[in-house]
Amino acid sequence: MSRTDRPRLGVGMVGYAFMGAAHSQAWRTAPRFFDLPRTIDMAALCGRDGAAVAAAAERLGWASTETDWRALVERDDVDLVDVCTPGDTHEEIAVAALAAGKHVLCEKPLANTLAEAERMAEAARAAEARGQVAMVGFTYRRVPAVQLARQIVEEGRIGRVRHVRAQYLQDWIADPEAPLSWRLDREKAGSGALGDIGAHVVDLAQFVTGEWLTGVSGLLETFVHERPVAEAHAGLRGSAGADRGPVTVDDAAVFYGRLTGGGLATFEATRFAWGRKNAIRLEINGEAGSLAFDFEDMNVLHLFDASEPARTAGFRRIVVTEADHPFVGAWWPAGHGLGYEHGFTHQVVDLVEAVAAGAAVRPTFDDGLQVQRVLDAVERSSLADNVWVPVPGPRRAQPAAARE
Amino acid sequence: MSRTDRPRLGVGMVGYAFMGAAHSQAWRTAPRFFDLPRTIDMAALCGRDGAAVAAAAERLGWASTETDWRALVERDDVDLVDVCTPGDTHEEIAVAALAAGKHVLCEKPLANTLAEAERMAEAARAAEARGQVAMVGFTYRRVPAVQLARQIVEEGRIGRVRHVRAQYLQDWIADPEAPLSWRLDREKAGSGALGDIGAHVVDLAQFVTGEWLTGVSGLLETFVHERPVAEAHAGLRGSAGADRGPVTVDDAAVFYGRLTGGGLATFEATRFAWGRKNAIRLEINGEAGSLAFDFEDMNVLHLFDASEPARTAGFRRIVVTEADHPFVGAWWPAGHGLGYEHGFTHQVVDLVEAVAAGAAVRPTFDDGLQVQRVLDAVERSSLADNVWVPVPGPRRAQPAAARE
Amino acid sequence: MSRTDRPRLGVGMVGYAFMGAAHSQAWRTAPRFFDLPRTIDMAALCGRDGAAVAAAAERLGWASTETDWRALVERDDVDLVDVCTPGDTHEEIAVAALAAGKHVLCEKPLANTLAEAERMAEAARAAEARGQVAMVGFTYRRVPAVQLARQIVEEGRIGRVRHVRAQYLQDWIADPEAPLSWRLDREKAGSGALGDIGAHVVDLAQFVTGEWLTGVSGLLETFVHERPVAEAHAGLRGSAGADRGPVTVDDAAVFYGRLTGGGLATFEATRFAWGRKNAIRLEINGEAGSLAFDFEDMNVLHLFDASEPARTAGFRRIVVTEADHPFVGAWWPAGHGLGYEHGFTHQVVDLVEAVAAGAAVRPTFDDGLQVQRVLDAVERSSLADNVWVPVPGPRRAQPAAARE
Amino acid sequence: MSRTDRPRLGVGMVGYAFMGAAHSQAWRTAPRFFDLPRTIDMAALCGRDGAAVAAAAERLGWASTETDWRALVERDDVDLVDVCTPGDTHEEIAVAALAAGKHVLCEKPLANTLAEAERMAEAARAAEARGQVAMVGFTYRRVPAVQLARQIVEEGRIGRVRHVRAQYLQDWIADPEAPLSWRLDREKAGSGALGDIGAHVVDLAQFVTGEWLTGVSGLLETFVHERPVAEAHAGLRGSAGADRGPVTVDDAAVFYGRLTGGGLATFEATRFAWGRKNAIRLEINGEAGSLAFDFEDMNVLHLFDASEPARTAGFRRIVVTEADHPFVGAWWPAGHGLGYEHGFTHQVVDLVEAVAAGAAVRPTFDDGLQVQRVLDAVERSSLADNVWVPVPGPRRAQPAAARE
Repeated sequence: MSRTDRPRLGVGMVGYAFMGAAHSQAWRTAPRFFDLPRTIDMAALCGRDGAAVAAAAERLGWASTETDWRALVERDDVDLVDVCTPGDTHEEIAVAALAAGKHVLCEKPLANTLAEAERMAEAARAAEARGQVAMVGFTYRRVPAVQLARQIVEEGRIGRVRHVRAQYLQDWIADPEAPLSWRLDREKAGSGALGDIGAHVVDLAQFVTGEWLTGVSGLLETFVHERPVAEAHAGLRGSAGADRGPVTVDDAAVFYGRLTGGGLATFEATRFAWGRKNAIRLEINGEAGSLAFDFEDMNVLHLFDASEPARTAGFRRIVVTEADHPFVGAWWPAGHGLGYEHGFTHQVVDLVEAVAAGAAVRPTFDDGLQVQRVLDAVERSSLADNVWVPVPGPRRAQPAAARE
Repeated sequence: MSRTDRPRLGVGMVGYAFMGAAHSQAWRTAPRFFDLPRTIDMAALCGRDGAAVAAAAERLGWASTETDWRALVERDDVDLVDVCTPGDTHEEIAVAALAAGKHVLCEKPLANTLAEAERMAEAARAAEARGQVAMVGFTYRRVPAVQLARQIVEEGRIGRVRHVRAQYLQDWIADPEAPLSWRLDREKAGSGALGDIGAHVVDLAQFVTGEWLTGVSGLLETFVHERPVAEAHAGLRGSAGADRGPVTVDDAAVFYGRLTGGGLATFEATRFAWGRKNAIRLEINGEAGSLAFDFEDMNVLHLFDASEPARTAGFRRIVVTEADHPFVGAWWPAGHGLGYEHGFTHQVVDLVEAVAAGAAVRPTFDDGLQVQRVLDAVERSSLADNVWVPVPGPRRAQPAAARE
Repeated sequence: MSRTDRPRLGVGMVGYAFMGAAHSQAWRTAPRFFDLPRTIDMAALCGRDGAAVAAAAERLGWASTETDWRALVERDDVDLVDVCTPGDTHEEIAVAALAAGKHVLCEKPLANTLAEAERMAEAARAAEARGQVAMVGFTYRRVPAVQLARQIVEEGRIGRVRHVRAQYLQDWIADPEAPLSWRLDREKAGSGALGDIGAHVVDLAQFVTGEWLTGVSGLLETFVHERPVAEAHAGLRGSAGADRGPVTVDDAAVFYGRLTGGGLATFEATRFAWGRKNAIRLEINGEAGSLAFDFEDMNVLHLFDASEPARTAGFRRIVVTEADHPFVGAWWPAGHGLGYEHGFTHQVVDLVEAVAAGAAVRPTFDDGLQVQRVLDAVERSSLADNVWVPVPGPRRAQPAAARE
Repeated sequence: MSRTDRPRLGVGMVGYAFMGAAHSQAWRTAPRFFDLPRTIDMAALCGRDGAAVAAAAERLGWASTETDWRALVERDDVDLVDVCTPGDTHEEIAVAALAAGKHVLCEKPLANTLAEAERMAEAARAAEARGQVAMVGFTYRRVPAVQLARQIVEEGRIGRVRHVRAQYLQDWIADPEAPLSWRLDREKAGSGALGDIGAHVVDLAQFVTGEWLTGVSGLLETFVHERPVAEAHAGLRGSAGADRGPVTVDDAAVFYGRLTGGGLATFEATRFAWGRKNAIRLEINGEAGSLAFDFEDMNVLHLFDASEPARTAGFRRIVVTEADHPFVGAWWPAGHGLGYEHGFTHQVVDLVEAVAAGAAVRPTFDDGLQVQRVLDAVERSSLADNVWVPVPGPRRAQPAAARE
């Protein structure tokens, strides 16, 4: 198929902050490096402030703007709605978009409450039956080293999983004077470290092992209960003003659980780990080997193969930049590493291929719901003296997909 | 004091396997590098098999032998009894030695049950009042990098502790065909990964933070329930025979708890982490900085100081081999690292100084008891749907000691 | 200045292989993340094969095509010519473009011979006097961690430089059956490891120290003299055909030299270091501290500050992803690392700012020439029993520039 | 053979500073962990100051003392003379001891001049013909990870060697106010960084590759020409006094050479690398794989095996603490790492086995001479505009030995 023959895919995006910038870069870049089955048309960007959204659209490369997401999801030139807003609006926008016949990419966590997530997953199932695609943005799945980890587990190379050790460590509010943001507001964000970053490591643990958590015991903690109100925003942080306001979410979450295969998994999510900027660590010990990953060294995967003679066995530092590593062949020669935003581009690639194939693509809304069930169980355990809270399994077998 | 003027300290040791070899090396080596206030006399080694203990005594440097520990603890030329046997005999030997007026060094864990530990601690308190010293062998405290970590916390340099992340990962029974040993037998060992290696990380967490755990939620797991019976032993492992027997202890333990200062601590102890040989990992995040240690790189401590400008802040890789690092000045020039057994030598140094001073030295039996209380609480939580189990605090303030 | 008011900058690029793809990504991306003083118009792409260049232009985002670079450099809508061809054509294209009044960005190494480089630098000096900008593409200078290293040296924080230890290690032709490419052909490439990758580490050493090499002793080596002819190309490598042809360049270069400040510098460039994919390593030891960088962990810079007390001194692992690190603020929050191609975007940013300011930007063609002089001296030393070959200093003081 | 039946080996040691302490620890410890064919009798320690040597003998475990080395080498109860003095006395003592029929262990470098080393090697050859053993103390050969590296090269696993990258980096005189010591005095030490630490990496490169250097080009440098005179000594450093004196040796040496197999080797030895305490780094790239070692992480060897599929290939971090690793089985379980002094113990083990077998043991004095030839060639190259200086090969094939 020549490039000009490709059907058009009109995209409309809601929200243009941190995630909006990352998604825009992905929509712009994917067609430049990958041979997509659709021609991407970045049709419209939506935000409530007309002047601000117009400036953002020019900067980020969107052809037009809307100030009401309801208008966006009804536009004929929009085939796919990309939801980059805080979690409190996910259900409303995503369900409306699906109802309007659009494909949907929704940022994580899927929703702020389990009930919202249930309704979204139900809407997605119905839409998938109509040939629509609904994907949730657990982008770290598409870091090449994480993809390779999944492949290695799937190939049986480390055997049945006995241990998962997952941590997401940041330090951007370790300073008690770091100002408030919507991420510290339960109304907007649903939860704190648990839903924002804990969700990622729960998803990664389930994705890489190919198993589900069947129950958890957990503990949430808020270390700093009041902070300065932010005056200006930049990245995750803003600058502090004179007023103070309450922190209404958890600062840190620790929990452990059991996987469907019987393995044990431990989790920690915190924004109070001084010196760890975005350390997403995943270690897996299986019956036949081990894997280790740390996003602070994102182009590397460590593999221990227990079938090797002990004399020369050791964790291999695989530099995941070879042409036959997942997604890598489209980029640069070996050793010329990728960065944070490449995962978003890979997400777009798989999403567009799924749209063209009329097939589901994981993480589906059901995958997102399953993460939500874990987060909910952790919260309930934390409120009930840390007692074990079972997590119900997914309602259906997951759809097969070209790329997980 | 010239060397020849020093009073003699007669030492009698019970047991001569892995721990006995390490302790012997320490008793032989300490006077060669450190200026001890006592002349060490390695008076007698005790074991049940007369021929075997005689051969061991010659190899390890003990002047005589006993085949009954009761005879050993009564010998006039023995001032200090060093207990290197499995946990099921600790109480009996240590209490008798204390009753006989001897100083005692007892390997960890202090005992196999909480009741035993309580009685031992009580005996030690009484003996300390008579000027005797009773120490428990949590040797990893005296790795110089761990000592430095303690000093840095004590100096307030990382501020109040918010997070402890402690893991002890091994792989020596990850192979289901690795044979049985006394360490997998509940009668001898009391528990498995929890008491053998989990005890170390609980002690390290409490030592370095200077805090106690006030409660825990935990989960124990046995992955492999039956193994070949061992025929010969070498190090931790033996070679497998044809018969099979049951594993009666836990293979892995995961738990989290809260520290007296309000911080959260997570723990994992497992012998099923392929590729991790003796990975004792301790990370601490405080209000003002962080520390990280991994025994796989035992001469190094990582420190993040949050007071530095972000532009040039970063975890410092401190090579703990400088002359002014704890214990290091007695050894080699900077960069000429120490090994596993040096911690045992340092333990002897502090113990002998305490004996000479008539003062207590930490870890006391009360410290060992406090670890035991945590282990016991983890076991009870694991049996009770992982519900929170409070850990009672120590009965008395700890004695001040020259070296912790 | 609002975006629409910005003057247009028409860009024409020659070549569209590996470097062309990287430069295109930079031209597309720079305006999305940085506030440039010009509106970039990717006006024309030039290549000899009309159909191929048309396909590349569509994929890479260029508005039109040319098949003769002479036509390109004469186009009125082209203000800047970006030269991404092999080294044997650099002089001809760059000099013609400068003569036609265009700004020029020329890939490294500046030229294949010293004579060519001398003429190019002369042309650039004349053009700069007319307000044109000529820059050579030593992109690794603009990796944020490298920029930070330069700032730290400039601030005097590590003191006068005593040692530089620079290596560029790859393994893409370590297999003797890896096929030929233009990079192994002296006619096209000028030299092998020396000019392709050795040039980068010479430039980095001179850039970060702010000094020049005053002489060198060196040795070149070709390990594999004949290889299969390539049939298809992908990245740096192609697939092997049945015929064989000669390798006419060096496979590896080792050399050492002296810096203007008296320090010693050692260099190694090789494509035969199995397991090292793109390891650009730079260590600098000064009178007051040290720096270390390895492109295999490109978002990290290690700093040792000798003014710290030895007890807590250590190499700091600075994660160079903070908002106040060079170029980083425009991208993502802390810890969300950048990749290989970001250096190209930063190069475009500084280039466009220089064009707008009518000022020179480093690395100038004189900087490129100075690298060439070092490479030439290494080749001559290698041919003359490794005797010391002095390197003449730059003809003039370097122009001050907003960003080095 | 039972322990008591073993023939006695009387040892006399000359010198009791840093090296004397390390050797003493080895003589004391070897019989405790290894089954030696001789009973070690630490018969006599020799030093010029009678009171000081008596104190040292007591502390280090020697049975008697001498104040004249001539008396020591004539003692009937001394079978082996261990020379731990500065290099200017090596020839005199070692040759006399060999003439007196003693076995000799001589610290490195073998001698201060090539002529001395030639005479010593000649004396050793004659003595070996009489059944005596002469060994030079390149102790780092017997770090288990280095031994494993040698085995892996010998087994052909990394193929023919193309590159060696060897560095020995320290910082103990990086401070210009660090005081003088005999190591900075040409009369005593022969040379500076070159002979003290450069000798080690030359030996390691030749040992691990099993090849010789055939020629070199090199450069020596003294950065600091005058320093305070030392008042007291501790480890490598002393404390500074008010007077100043000249530094008469090199502070740093850089050189490259060619191996007998055609590979290239680069070397750097410096005491001015701030933050590197005792970084002995050795990287080897062969036709089929690579090895990397750094003494700062001495229990680890990194191996890249190019025969593995690129998708899961990577440098393996081998923790060299398994029972079947060289020397390791005698010590502790896996993961319980060794330290600096263990290499000295291993040296004693092999030396005593050679004595019992009446066989040579490497490094022989010829091996030491060969290192000396390289150092001499580097010095001559440095004085002659860095021109290539050939290194003559060894006079004879090396003796086969149980352990290299």
